[in-house]
Amino acid sequence: MLGPNYKGRTPGPVPSTNLQADDKEDFREFEPFSDADVTPRSVPPGADVLTVVDVNMRKQFNEQNHHTAEYVAKAMVVRRGQQFIIDVIFSREILPQDDFQLEFLIGANPSPSKRSLVVVTFGNRAGGSWLGQVLGQDGAVVSLGVTPDAKAIVGLYRTYVAISMGNGMQRTDKNAKTNLYLLCNPWCPDDVVFYPDEAGRWEYVMNSTGIIHQGSVGSVSERNWVYGQFGKGILDACIFIMDSCQMPIHNRGDVVKICRKASAMINSQNDNGVLVGNWSENFSLGTRPTAWTGSSKILLKYHNSGNPVMYAQCWVYAGVLCTFLRCLGIPCRVITNFNSAHDNTGNLKTELVFRRDGTPDRRNTRDSIWNYHCWCEAFMQRHDIPTRYSGWQVVDATPQETSDGYFRCGPAPVIAIKNGELCHPFDCGFVFAEVNSDVVYLKSDRYGTMTPFKVDTTYVGALLCTKSVGSWGLQEVTQNYKYPEGSAENERTMVTAEEYGCERDHSVVPETSLSVEILTQPTSLGSVVKVQVRFNNQSDSSRTVAAHFEVSVAFYTGVLSDEFRVEEFTLDLPAYQSNTAEFHISPEEYMPALGSQLCLHFEVNGESDGQKVSEVKVLWLVPPPLTITFEGVPRVNHTMYATVQFKNPFNMTLLQASLVMEGAALVETTVFHYKTIGPYAEITETIPLVPQKPGNQTLVALLDCENLNQVTAVEKRAEFHVMP
Amino acid sequence: MLGPNYKGRTPGPVPSTNLQADDKEDFREFEPFSDADVTPRSVPPGADVLTVVDVNMRKQFNEQNHHTAEYVAKAMVVRRGQQFIIDVIFSREILPQDDFQLEFLIGANPSPSKRSLVVVTFGNRAGGSWLGQVLGQDGAVVSLGVTPDAKAIVGLYRTYVAISMGNGMQRTDKNAKTNLYLLCNPWCPDDVVFYPDEAGRWEYVMNSTGIIHQGSVGSVSERNWVYGQFGKGILDACIFIMDSCQMPIHNRGDVVKICRKASAMINSQNDNGVLVGNWSENFSLGTRPTAWTGSSKILLKYHNSGNPVMYAQCWVYAGVLCTFLRCLGIPCRVITNFNSAHDNTGNLKTELVFRRDGTPDRRNTRDSIWNYHCWCEAFMQRHDIPTRYSGWQVVDATPQETSDGYFRCGPAPVIAIKNGELCHPFDCGFVFAEVNSDVVYLKSDRYGTMTPFKVDTTYVGALLCTKSVGSWGLQEVTQNYKYPEGSAENERTMVTAEEYGCERDHSVVPETSLSVEILTQPTSLGSVVKVQVRFNNQSDSSRTVAAHFEVSVAFYTGVLSDEFRVEEFTLDLPAYQSNTAEFHISPEEYMPALGSQLCLHFEVNGESDGQKVSEVKVLWLVPPPLTITFEGVPRVNHTMYATVQFKNPFNMTLLQASLVMEGAALVETTVFHYKTIGPYAEITETIPLVPQKPGNQTLVALLDCENLNQVTAVEKRAEFHVMP
Repeated sequence: MLGPNYKGRTPGPVPSTNLQADDKEDFREFEPFSDADVTPRSVPPGADVLTVVDVNMRKQFNEQNHHTAEYVAKAMVVRRGQQFIIDVIFSREILPQDDFQLEFLIGANPSPSKRSLVVVTFGNRAGGSWLGQVLGQDGAVVSLGVTPDAKAIVGLYRTYVAISMGNGMQRTDKNAKTNLYLLCNPWCPDDVVFYPDEAGRWEYVMNSTGIIHQGSVGSVSERNWVYGQFGKGILDACIFIMDSCQMPIHNRGDVVKICRKASAMINSQNDNGVLVGNWSENFSLGTRPTAWTGSSKILLKYHNSGNPVMYAQCWVYAGVLCTFLRCLGIPCRVITNFNSAHDNTGNLKTELVFRRDGTPDRRNTRDSIWNYHCWCEAFMQRHDIPTRYSGWQVVDATPQETSDGYFRCGPAPVIAIKNGELCHPFDCGFVFAEVNSDVVYLKSDRYGTMTPFKVDTTYVGALLCTKSVGSWGLQEVTQNYKYPEGSAENERTMVTAEEYGCERDHSVVPETSLSVEILTQPTSLGSVVKVQVRFNNQSDSSRTVAAHFEVSVAFYTGVLSDEFRVEEFTLDLPAYQSNTAEFHISPEEYMPALGSQLCLHFEVNGESDGQKVSEVKVLWLVPPPLTITFEGVPRVNHTMYATVQFKNPFNMTLLQASLVMEGAALVETTVFHYKTIGPYAEITETIPLVPQKPGNQTLVALLDCENLNQVTAVEKRAEFHVMP
Repeated sequence: MLGPNYKGRTPGPVPSTNLQADDKEDFREFEPFSDADVTPRSVPPGADVLTVVDVNMRKQFNEQNHHTAEYVAKAMVVRRGQQFIIDVIFSREILPQDDFQLEFLIGANPSPSKRSLVVVTFGNRAGGSWLGQVLGQDGAVVSLGVTPDAKAIVGLYRTYVAISMGNGMQRTDKNAKTNLYLLCNPWCPDDVVFYPDEAGRWEYVMNSTGIIHQGSVGSVSERNWVYGQFGKGILDACIFIMDSCQMPIHNRGDVVKICRKASAMINSQNDNGVLVGNWSENFSLGTRPTAWTGSSKILLKYHNSGNPVMYAQCWVYAGVLCTFLRCLGIPCRVITNFNSAHDNTGNLKTELVFRRDGTPDRRNTRDSIWNYHCWCEAFMQRHDIPTRYSGWQVVDATPQETSDGYFRCGPAPVIAIKNGELCHPFDCGFVFAEVNSDVVYLKSDRYGTMTPFKVDTTYVGALLCTKSVGSWGLQEVTQNYKYPEGSAENERTMVTAEEYGCERDHSVVPETSLSVEILTQPTSLGSVVKVQVRFNNQSDSSRTVAAHFEVSVAFYTGVLSDEFRVEEFTLDLPAYQSNTAEFHISPEEYMPALGSQLCLHFEVNGESDGQKVSEVKVLWLVPPPLTITFEGVPRVNHTMYATVQFKNPFNMTLLQASLVMEGAALVETTVFHYKTIGPYAEITETIPLVPQKPGNQTLVALLDCENLNQVTAVEKRAEFHVMP
């Protein structure tokens, strides 16, 4: 460990591994008080020396009280700031003069001054920051209550019982059976992650299945996600993430630092983190981002290999980050921001550039607007900045370009973003731009100079939402991020943001008596898409509009494919009247262009008497359904069966299809592969389920293929009740 | 460039290279207004078409006005927010109907919306954010004044003249001779780096030689440093640093972002930056940190190889960072903080642990106090946080462990640190701890529980200083960082800091009528060190103290070698009286233990009637002198000679010695190597100097060897005046 470059810089390497620390001994079995006599004082024959026969961690009992019974882990899991009980079986009844203590150690070279070695005493003798209490005694069995400090380091601890032998301390042997995991505690008012409401705690910490919203503002779609934070090996995988970035052990009690680290570590940039991003159409080296149904497989794969897992896009980053935080006991939810500005310059202008002939100038358009972007919110008290910024904090693991140069973002207080107070850590300005950027339509003149002809202040951040507490419904949270458009508060927010360096567009846009809208209805994938372009003439004289309309495929990141339909047309507009042109786009026309995307992007520009108008719109196409049916009685540890069916509604062949099924505490991720699924062909798969706990359970099924992905629908998620 | 993982995520890669961007063409020579006609309209015979014959950048003239004449660079260097003049020689006199513009481009894919392509117009036609003005015209020669925006991107620009040909723009060819470097401008009130005082501008931006303070509070020593920010290739090397970390071009106008990047890039951690840290005693793979005399060699080596340069310790990081910032026009100075807390937990306690027998318990002592630590201050307006935090900002490139997990620190407003307002970016809490930590002396009882017996609130950050403006003197800046100890303001600062999560020690330390001090005088290396340990008895009864005294070698990072002198002794103390024990440490005893360090560390602990006192002290030993003499007349571009002499005052042999001489605009780094320099041996070296500019010049000489380094003294720096 102590490399040549280390010596002399600090007294030693900063302890930064938890799971690996197990291989070396912590103590000599007998530690003399003075190095003079190194052996236990020879005991007079017959003297009744106190020794430890056994230690009972009371796993089941403690985990019930600590809401940790669901964890499938190799040791007891408890939460900080709350008492747990350990029974110590001594060699005899303890007497007043007996002097013993518990010791909890975490990481390498644990030290009391770094809170990584905690001494818990049970008499009047001073101990560490954890409270100790003798709760009762039954013969030689003593029940000890231990209450870890609400700021205690989170992770895997080793437990020792030490008895004073007059000339030294006699300790129990190192024993993995007495290890314990300590987590954050949303139920504990002294813990910074305390969440005041029970329903919320169950949703944001305990719920292991959720929804991530996608699509477009007009037609929001749902993707289910199995967080699986309690699954076998997941807790170890989460601790491993902190180990593999060498996060100092003594920082692991600090929730702000944990969140900041996580936002950096869930993506692989900079730091060999968990997930490799891939926004291309080529996923041949890994799993398609659209083919994941949950976090477990990803986290276990990362832990086993130590290498980044391929591939992710924003909802995958958000899903895995949410698992990580919930697993450690930090309340977390996934947010979707529709029309999310991805603004390279970190100002408040997202600039769309058009040529003089009205066609989009993609070479000069550097900014992009993601149809949607997903990030996490973590709930905590902030003590590093004024406490009014406590509450939900944005934490984003998707490697966009953060204001701070590294690929990570947050925790950024949502309330600070709402008020434009961007002067506190971390990355508030970046998040602010994602939800508040103005869309500036620029036309470049012949000399390359650009002038704005339209500014849209409502398009970006049109809708922010998350899963409702305790139901599958959608909860809008836009109002947490913004005041109503045009309100005085909103104006104040913008002014404040500008004081902190956000650049806004203040150009006066020419008044125009011409306007245009693009109208669409929700359309299912495979049917004809009908688009109406309506121009409105608010002037008192009739006019003719020369219009340019084009259709392309939009990546969810807002980047456009080449347009596959271009229309030049003119419309006559009588005074104070509208006129509409309708276009039909057949599946034969758009399906080949779609690739793995489900979004069509419409763009119209019109000009009349030198007045220029422009509009863009995105339409998410609704994919075909899956059906799930169940057989057998849902009972804990009894086998039942789930059947998933899919019928290809297209007269095209689906390539490299995979059918994925996953259910927390129900079945591990199961995948069926198909080289092809022919036109109108039907597939059916049945798998056994063995529910591991009573209550409502959810199975998630998903069909994904190379040339048409995210084939998911309402029925993809099936919920049922399991009897004990 | 457009890697597979990139496609679809953003419209294209973010432009992030400046120097490399030169290889591709920016424009077609003729750019038609409409793609319809792509060739210059055929000109009627005899028509007098306007074309550009030549462009004169007026290098010398502009650089005089922009304080950039000293730069030895491959193109003109000017500063933003200030007008420079370009003469364009046309094919004929220009007429009112002629329509032309200048275009300045930086980086790959320059774009007006990202301010990396700036159009400068000279009529009523709208242009970009840089001001254009026709200053005069002499026949076909037109003098154009250009004033770059005070927020303009810093770096190397390409210049074009474009003439409207009716159906398109005719541009000059790409021509390296018309490139220009644009820098920050401390003389411009609109630039965030504006420095209000001329003397300060010359010290903090223009001075290419400086002092970095070292040693210990009692005996501060000076190390000279040749910043050499104007030297050949240095400016390109600094831009290369931003390129090699792929700092987006559009961020390079933002001084806060530049400083933050620099603090990360000057060290090699995370990002393959400039300097590799090495705090060991083994520097065989590179140059000893103590053997550098300036930044130039390091920066040029990094630019040429693209690989981190070995090796650095804090003053090297600070020196190179200062060169980088001054070179880009950002006012910067190097600060030395004596007794700098290196606090891993980021709280305000630096804990020294002692065993029950009074001996230091190094295993449990995790924190360290650096005898001194060097960082930079950069001067700027902050617009990302409330403007009251403008002024000097701490920027530290030494890879300690920053609060933000990556190896970088700042910019942190000095005023925020003084007031304990640690809630703004960047890393204020970390710097605050470096100057304000309390030293807590802990004794561990037999059970491993630790209790404090002494808290020293004055030891850490005892002195902060920098070079004076316009002289070689020392300027104390402690008052910029802290209010007087014990003042009401200081108390308020501490309370505020605690609100933002700094943990202080509030343990009540037992009253004691016993105290102890360690007394030393400045001692030159090689002579006997005399140390007095004085115990004071403030009680009305006489007592006897049992004391433990030990001497070890201290790395400047405060880490201790093994002790080579241990004394156990007792002293009788009559009521209200003192008693002193004196110890002599001979060179024979300490020299072999010194290694490359020059600091002795004394530690005393005493106990009497259960009262416990303890004290530590560091003594920096003054190294032997060098002498420099000059021959010849100091005149620009005339050869003169410098002779450096050194006499080994020790009866030991100096191993692997190197004598280094360097002077900005005088002589490049020159090194003489000696396998050995015998006891009392003398060496003499003479080198030629060719002053490149008039005024005061400085030569720095330094002798460094394996077993005794930093052999430097007042005479190591010799200053003289050069005639034009």
